[in-house]
Amino acid sequence: MKGNELSRRNFIKFGIAGGAAAMTGAAVAAENVTFDESYDVVVIGTGFAGLSCATKCAAAKLKVLLVDKMPVIGGNSAICGGFMAVPLSKYQKALGHKDSREAFIGDCLKDGLGINHVDLLNVIFDRARDAEELVESVGGKTDHRITFESGHSVPRSIATRSGTGADYVMPMYEALKKLPNVTFKTRCKFDDFLMNKEGRVVGIVCREGYKFNAELESDDVQNTSGTKKTFEAKRGVMLATGGFSRDKWFRQIQDPRVVPSIDSTNHPGATAGALLKAFDIGAVPVQISWLQFLPYCSPFEKGYGISSNIIEHCGFDYGMVVNPKTGKRFMDEHAGRKIKTDAMLNVIGNDENYPLAVFDTDAIAAINPAYTKAPLEQGAAKPFSTLDELADHYKMDKAAFKAEVERFNGFVKNGKDTDFGKPLQYHKGISIKTAPFYAIPCCPKVHHTMGGLLINTKAQVISSKTHEPIPGLYAGGEVTGGIHGASRLGTVAVADALTFGMVAGEQLSA
Amino acid sequence: MKGNELSRRNFIKFGIAGGAAAMTGAAVAAENVTFDESYDVVVIGTGFAGLSCATKCAAAKLKVLLVDKMPVIGGNSAICGGFMAVPLSKYQKALGHKDSREAFIGDCLKDGLGINHVDLLNVIFDRARDAEELVESVGGKTDHRITFESGHSVPRSIATRSGTGADYVMPMYEALKKLPNVTFKTRCKFDDFLMNKEGRVVGIVCREGYKFNAELESDDVQNTSGTKKTFEAKRGVMLATGGFSRDKWFRQIQDPRVVPSIDSTNHPGATAGALLKAFDIGAVPVQISWLQFLPYCSPFEKGYGISSNIIEHCGFDYGMVVNPKTGKRFMDEHAGRKIKTDAMLNVIGNDENYPLAVFDTDAIAAINPAYTKAPLEQGAAKPFSTLDELADHYKMDKAAFKAEVERFNGFVKNGKDTDFGKPLQYHKGISIKTAPFYAIPCCPKVHHTMGGLLINTKAQVISSKTHEPIPGLYAGGEVTGGIHGASRLGTVAVADALTFGMVAGEQLSA
Repeated sequence: MKGNELSRRNFIKFGIAGGAAAMTGAAVAAENVTFDESYDVVVIGTGFAGLSCATKCAAAKLKVLLVDKMPVIGGNSAICGGFMAVPLSKYQKALGHKDSREAFIGDCLKDGLGINHVDLLNVIFDRARDAEELVESVGGKTDHRITFESGHSVPRSIATRSGTGADYVMPMYEALKKLPNVTFKTRCKFDDFLMNKEGRVVGIVCREGYKFNAELESDDVQNTSGTKKTFEAKRGVMLATGGFSRDKWFRQIQDPRVVPSIDSTNHPGATAGALLKAFDIGAVPVQISWLQFLPYCSPFEKGYGISSNIIEHCGFDYGMVVNPKTGKRFMDEHAGRKIKTDAMLNVIGNDENYPLAVFDTDAIAAINPAYTKAPLEQGAAKPFSTLDELADHYKMDKAAFKAEVERFNGFVKNGKDTDFGKPLQYHKGISIKTAPFYAIPCCPKVHHTMGGLLINTKAQVISSKTHEPIPGLYAGGEVTGGIHGASRLGTVAVADALTFGMVAGEQLSA
Repeated sequence: MKGNELSRRNFIKFGIAGGAAAMTGAAVAAENVTFDESYDVVVIGTGFAGLSCATKCAAAKLKVLLVDKMPVIGGNSAICGGFMAVPLSKYQKALGHKDSREAFIGDCLKDGLGINHVDLLNVIFDRARDAEELVESVGGKTDHRITFESGHSVPRSIATRSGTGADYVMPMYEALKKLPNVTFKTRCKFDDFLMNKEGRVVGIVCREGYKFNAELESDDVQNTSGTKKTFEAKRGVMLATGGFSRDKWFRQIQDPRVVPSIDSTNHPGATAGALLKAFDIGAVPVQISWLQFLPYCSPFEKGYGISSNIIEHCGFDYGMVVNPKTGKRFMDEHAGRKIKTDAMLNVIGNDENYPLAVFDTDAIAAINPAYTKAPLEQGAAKPFSTLDELADHYKMDKAAFKAEVERFNGFVKNGKDTDFGKPLQYHKGISIKTAPFYAIPCCPKVHHTMGGLLINTKAQVISSKTHEPIPGLYAGGEVTGGIHGASRLGTVAVADALTFGMVAGEQLSA
């Protein structure tokens, strides 16, 4: 209950950055505005959705502005793993994995508790291949390896070469930056939409020289830095501002259990400000209270940290996860994120009893060394020459733990986990048998916000007033809602953002 | 998947009722308006929250206007059961039932999946007694009997004398109507807020002579009837417009499984229009996608219908529910509302494949005849002298269905349901064995929308722009969100609406 009361903290005691327009909730009427600069397309946000939109628009010779409130481009896209679900990709086909519309959408609906917007999932199924090729066409560093991600019924996710979304973000950014018709402005904060009398979004109000301040309780409300500028967007505005995992105020309103001290894997700028501005002009909130946690984080590292990849791919994919109090497993390590998060939060309880991901040397050999180098070198994942030593170190009941390892190894050998139903057909026989053995504590962190605003299959933002698109306004990626339903499957967000960014770019270029 | 696509139906092809202000998403600037009429307080909605607010304001001698878009007052409040959870009421104490803050809030959090806004539940705990006495003070027909409702750990719900919320609505209405300082306007549709330069809500734009039209796909968007009027609200506006269970567009955006053909127990005016208008001026959406269903309704009756009691008590309590496509059971018929609803919606799919509740003559004999009389006399529950006839009538695979009946009867006999775990200890040996046999199609109907806008403990509407109250704007009841979390306990909605209506009235009178 105490955490909940925090949502009522008397946060703000001073002026509002947005000025009078913000006070009345109105978008600024464009008739009263002289534009400081004029573009065909203005893109707000420079993550996957913004960059793929801009890539399309730039190729069509449009004059494009991309703004980002942060000092660097890329948002969460630059720091995520960058793995991308691409059903029927050339890589997937080459490896002989059978995939289908029914399988992909069925997987998403299963984890999404059936409330996903299926028409949008169909767009991803139909167009993710094009989005992936768009990224490759400008030098995106995809990896031909296809990974079998949790919650997916078939291997369908294309890896990044070095395990980070920067493998896509940086080539797209570099390619765009070279073009004479493309402008990037960082430290440029979106404040408001400019609308004409007909209700069309024709530009935005920004502040240049913005200094994002993560120390504020709410940067969106409290930060008054920067100088006002107005930018015309003759063809339209693309809203690609991401989710609100770092918005301590808005996320706790949606789920009061998410007290401010709960960490997030996201970059500090992942706040709800732009989304809330869109609601002002009639964008429709969708499934706003579904937050997703990333279950395979290290409680001892900030944000995503250096250990998430080794925990996920060695610990969850090829190893097992145990409750240190019992030495026993408590979940299907391949289950969807929400199932694992709920199980892990239950184990963690109030005394920081972090589950242990346990794996062996074969698991390390099976995955990309880029994922294991840092946590091994820095000692985040500890090696033990025997299981006894491992159990001792974490004060586990040795007999119980070793019996559980035996049991798990038997499951892998027989191809059937009769305790938790972990699918073992892609385990390649790897279990916990080759020393040194490794263990690493893990915990969930706020990772993705499923809710957002309503778009249609053309990435147009729908209005609550007309039930039709708001003219001139597009959106893609985490700022939108409905695609993932109650819970996003891993690697579908990258497909989502790149696909709907591309679709918006096609619409704006048409 | 098909149902989902319906959420993208190209609904609207004509003009917007709200005019240019609605087009730009702005609230109307009050500076440009000459008010047609002036009041101290304007209350939008005439259900429990609106009436209790007005009762307080009227007692303080304020000039009060209540508007309702419908031709009659009362909204859902007039047609619900009116049972009201009142922890520590005089009636509860007289009967010796022990209650406490921890018990009440704990019960709400359990069903609400822990995401309830506890500070608001505290207000209900602290003030529901006052709200109940306010209703009694103007002649509200409470009943001294305390009922023990599902999900509550202690009997704490005060009954209405004739089992309907009209027992409170009509006395409150009659008392208010007599007062010279109170005006009611029905057929008066709220269109927009009027705000001054400082961001204060100072009145509303309405249409008088409004003719609500339930035949439209969206009355809020399509209905252009009525004559525009502006009403000043010197002290403030109370938003008490209820939930959106009947808003086929908005509810399907939140839960795509809720196709338009799915009925609701609510009155036809329960749409999202006013809530969405509040988002325009910065009200904060809270937990908007949690819909509550009643699973035991008839798809062939309007609203709650005459068959809900026989379906619930004969079909679910003593019988079994099968998928007519397979002739087999698919759920624990005694599970909670949400579990059953999810299972049933899955069976119904997009082709109106309604589950069949099947029971026998012994089940009918076991329950209150008042629940079975109408559906039996009117043929809603059909009798069949053999299981073959029943299967034939519903085009079920006879062998599969009869085998399932045998299996179910065996479970009842052995006291253990090894398929779905239905608890059979209160079955009194009743199964499907005594002809005539009965079957009745059943489906969940939308009953309550948990989500809404954010208020604080003073019923003030919070702004996304300031994280502080929007001056001059109050809200209470189903239009607000957070109080019930993921799932509302029965009888807490009445307490919620009457309490926060009263609190808003106190604030407006202060």
